Formats: sequence, C-alpha cells, structure tokens
Amino acid sequence: MNIALDMMGGDFAPDEAVRGVARFLTAGQENVHLTVVGDQDQLNPLLTELAVPSAHVTVVHAPQVIGMHEHPTKALKEKTQSSIAVGFQLLAGRKIDAFISAGNTGAMLVGAHYFLKTIKGVIRPAISTLIPKNNGGTGLLLDVGLNADCKPEQLSQFAILGSLYARHISGIENPRVGLINIGEEEGKGNLLAQSAYPLLKANPFIHFIGNIEGRDILLDRADVMVCEGFTGNIILKLAESIYEITRQKEIRHEYFERFNFENYGGTPLLGVSEPVIIGHGISQAPAFANMISLAVKMISSDLLGKMKSRFEGLG
Amino acid sequence: MNIALDMMGGDFAPDEAVRGVARFLTAGQENVHLTVVGDQDQLNPLLTELAVPSAHVTVVHAPQVIGMHEHPTKALKEKTQSSIAVGFQLLAGRKIDAFISAGNTGAMLVGAHYFLKTIKGVIRPAISTLIPKNNGGTGLLLDVGLNADCKPEQLSQFAILGSLYARHISGIENPRVGLINIGEEEGKGNLLAQSAYPLLKANPFIHFIGNIEGRDILLDRADVMVCEGFTGNIILKLAESIYEITRQKEIRHEYFERFNFENYGGTPLLGVSEPVIIGHGISQAPAFANMISLAVKMISSDLLGKMKSRFEGLG
Repeated sequence: MNIALDMMGGDFAPDEAVRGVARFLTAGQENVHLTVVGDQDQLNPLLTELAVPSAHVTVVHAPQVIGMHEHPTKALKEKTQSSIAVGFQLLAGRKIDAFISAGNTGAMLVGAHYFLKTIKGVIRPAISTLIPKNNGGTGLLLDVGLNADCKPEQLSQFAILGSLYARHISGIENPRVGLINIGEEEGKGNLLAQSAYPLLKANPFIHFIGNIEGRDILLDRADVMVCEGFTGNIILKLAESIYEITRQKEIRHEYFERFNFENYGGTPLLGVSEPVIIGHGISQAPAFANMISLAVKMISSDLLGKMKSRFEGLG
Repeated sequence: MNIALDMMGGDFAPDEAVRGVARFLTAGQENVHLTVVGDQDQLNPLLTELAVPSAHVTVVHAPQVIGMHEHPTKALKEKTQSSIAVGFQLLAGRKIDAFISAGNTGAMLVGAHYFLKTIKGVIRPAISTLIPKNNGGTGLLLDVGLNADCKPEQLSQFAILGSLYARHISGIENPRVGLINIGEEEGKGNLLAQSAYPLLKANPFIHFIGNIEGRDILLDRADVMVCEGFTGNIILKLAESIYEITRQKEIRHEYFERFNFENYGGTPLLGVSEPVIIGHGISQAPAFANMISLAVKMISSDLLGKMKSRFEGLG
C-alpha cells in the first residue's frame, strides 16, 4: 500500500513530519510505501539527516504551501501546486491509497469535497474524534465540526459510519451507539435529537443504546456517540482544553495524559470515497507516525469498501 | 426579607436542608427570616436538635412531597400540598421574597411557569450555571437546559439577563459576553449562531466580545457565555463529570475542587418575576446555605427590579 503525507502542513512542518515518517518506518512496516509531498529542497536534506530508508519513501515535489490561516477555497484554487492540492490529485488519480495532512483543516475539507466523491448514499461526510473514557477505553464522537446543522437522517448515517469504524479500526465487535442528548428518555432533547431518536432506534445496522448525556461522554457508556457538528466541536475543544489546563497547572496524572490528542494521531474524514486523515495543527512526530498507522489500518481492513457496501445496500 | 426553602427536596432532605439553614443562621444574618416548607413532624424535631433559633424561622406545613422522578406537571397538579406547590403559592402571593428548592427540577420549572409571571418582554426564562475558570474566577453560562431549541432573539436576551446577573451578583462592572460557537470569526457556526451574532453585536445593553469556542469556556475569555440549552446542558454535565471522575480517581487539586458545583449553591431561574433558585439533587448543607446567601444577594441588589426595568425599556 502507498500512503501519502502532506509534509508541509502543521505548525512543526516539515521537521516533525519527517521525524514522524522516520519513527513509523523504524517500527518496520515492510508492505507500506510512503509518498511524502512537499518542497523537495527542504525534504531531501531532512530525510538524509534522519537516515530515512529511501526504498520506502518517494518524494513528490510540491513547491507551494497553503498556510494555516489562508482562506481554504481561495488557497486551493490558486495554489494548484501546494502539498494539499497535489496530495488530493494523487488520491483522486488512485496513485496513492490514503492521504494525511496536519495542514489547514478547511483546505483539507474543501479539497476532499472538490477532488473526491462522497460515498454513494451518504448525505455529507463527517469528522470524528476519539474521546478517552474513564476506564481506559475510547469512544468515537462524530460529527465534530463539519456539519454545524444536521438533519436527523445524517445522525443516523453518522451512527453507521462510526459503527463500521469502531468495529474495523478499534476492534469493537458490536459497538454501542449513543445519541448525545439532554435527557435519558426517548422524547427528550431538542427537535433534532427528538427526530433522530426513532431513526436510530429503527436503524438495523447499529446497536443503539439510547440517549447519553453530557455526564456520560467521558464514561464507558457508548462506543460511538453521535451529534451534530456544533455540539461535537464544543465537546472536542472543551476536552482538549482540559488537557491544556492540566499541563499548565502541572497536574500530572495518567488519566489526563490520555486527553493528549496527539496519541490518537488525527481524525479520519468519514463518508468520502478514499481514506483521508486530518491531523491537528500542533501534530509532532508521534502524531504523524500514529496517523500513518491509522491509514494502514483503514486500508488493510478495507474500511472504505465496507462503508460503500453498507450504503449501497441502503441506496 | 423572607426566604423560603423547600425542605423536602433533594437526595438528602430534610436533614441536609435543616443543616443548611442552621449553617446559614450561624453566620448571623439579622435581617433574614427563613420560611421552611415541609412536613412539620419531620422538621420540628430536626430544628430543635440542631438548635436552630426559632425567632428566625417559620415552619409552613406541607404534608406532600414530589419525588425526584415524578412527572412534573402531573405531580404539581395532584400534589397541591407538596412543599414545591406550597412554596410557589407563597411566592406568587408575595408572602415570601424568594423560593429555593433542591427537589424535582422539572416540577420547579413547571411550577415557576404556572405560578409566576415571566418578566414582561422576556421570551422565555433560562437557567444558568457558574463555570470555574482556570484563573480562579467564574463565568456564567446560560441557558443550560430549559430551552433546547432557541431563536436568535433568545440568545440576545440571555446575554442581557446574564450581564445583569454578573454585574449585580458577581460584582463584575462591565461583563464580557461571548457567544459559544465553533469558530472565531463572525459568520461561523450553525444557523442559530450565525443569526445571533449580529443581534448580540447590535445589543446596546451588553459588552459583546464575539465568539468563544469550546476551548475558551474554561479560560478567562468571557464573563457571560450564551448558547441554547442543548449545548449548555452538555457543557454543564460534562464539567460536572470531570469533577466526579477526578474524585473517583483521587486526583486532588484545588483546580478541580472548584468544579464541585455545591460551592455555587444552585442556579437561579432567570427571566421570571420573582427570585427562584433551583439546587442540585445532591445538595448538602453547604449548598443549601449558599443558596440562601444567593437569594439574599438577589433580593438586596433588587436584581429582579433591574431586569424588569431593562426589559420594560425594550418593550
């Protein structure tokens, strides 16, 4: 398999991206080839310096960079030779099997929309995040920001996408799906949650356990937690801030270490036709290495094929 | 002033309610009279046992109790001699100046709606909570669950109610108001946030500082944070769960102690014509004492009068 990385994206590019590649390859992945996309004049010396085995890596030159604060659509349109645009061109042309970037999130989302297809039957893709639970496990939360307003049908689709991810990537046989809500019983919540509940209950492809409240998010109640992207994004960023605050206050505990989102190495864009992983802007080497490992899992488990079959069956 | 307490509400009633009354009176509040509402056969021995000074306390007998899990509307209708119904009757008849209960939250909300008026000009009341900030202060978050779906105008009204509360109760001269959102710039967010932003910006009665994201909620960014009750409730319960988890894991730190919601002693129902404070079901003596102190502040600052004048000016 051939996995491409945007080497110019993120606050610590390209150094930490190259370190991440080196770190991943040190673990010895014989059947993985990495395509590193970026400015070759910066990348080649770094690859040499870190003694990255050239047999496992191909440099694809992309002379332009989309900055973290550029307007996504405008930047993608104007910078056709940027690492993000080149990466998506490779993915759309099936030259690579997955694309990873810690660069401008908006540009990644616009790029996926522009260069890739949405899986047939999926209304809109979603982005997810892993939330650490108090018992050591994790739960998948989606959407975390791509769809600020949602129809009830979308929440039901997120549940399917999330369940397939939990099963094939996290290895949970029969993942429990919870609807994020502000009450336990059916009928509670805002209009969206009230309408989504019966759809989730009737959805034959998921194991729906009912509503879960804010207090349940960090507990081992559900493996997949669905909500619209507004609430999901607030939850994600609040959880990230808890990690930041505990670090600043030097509150050291294994539990809070698990809120270090670098451990999870980026979030896959679920619902598009090819594997795309979006990293945090502050990604460093471990995050890049973890994102490559996640891409390997997505490809080797044929997660996308499974999503396509599932939605084809629904179409 | 005369403040009434529902002595039968909450998981530790009536014992902890009586202890809370004793605790409050020990601090010596000469001008405060307390009306304790509940089963006199249970209350009188407890009041005697704890040597609560009878000159400061009047027992009003209410032989019925609304359970924590009873259906609010049904229970209020059938149990006209319950402590919650009797308390609201006293408040509606101006026999008391404020009413406090840690009982069935739904019944308190229905009771307020049934027995009291909404302040003229206010679309719907809201409930708020104090959120501890990383620098030692607190921010007021509203709505936290009463209005699962909101119109943009409601968010603008929450900003006014919250600002008056922050000024007159928390003592913040010119409270900064933030709109909880999923992006920094105007135009970001879901349809509600997009529509609320210009209303908040144009609102002459508040000091609007723009959007605040999930990562800002625990930081010293805004003194008043507005959102619809769905998101607010998720934030509140997530924050409460962090406190619970740190206790279970025995992670002791002054910072997390501040997430003990008992410190804040209940949440006022903002937008109704009389002071009503709703306590957490798990309230113990310190929470009851703090709720009485909060009621004292609300009455002595004439918060309700100030809210009424502000909205009268708008009507």
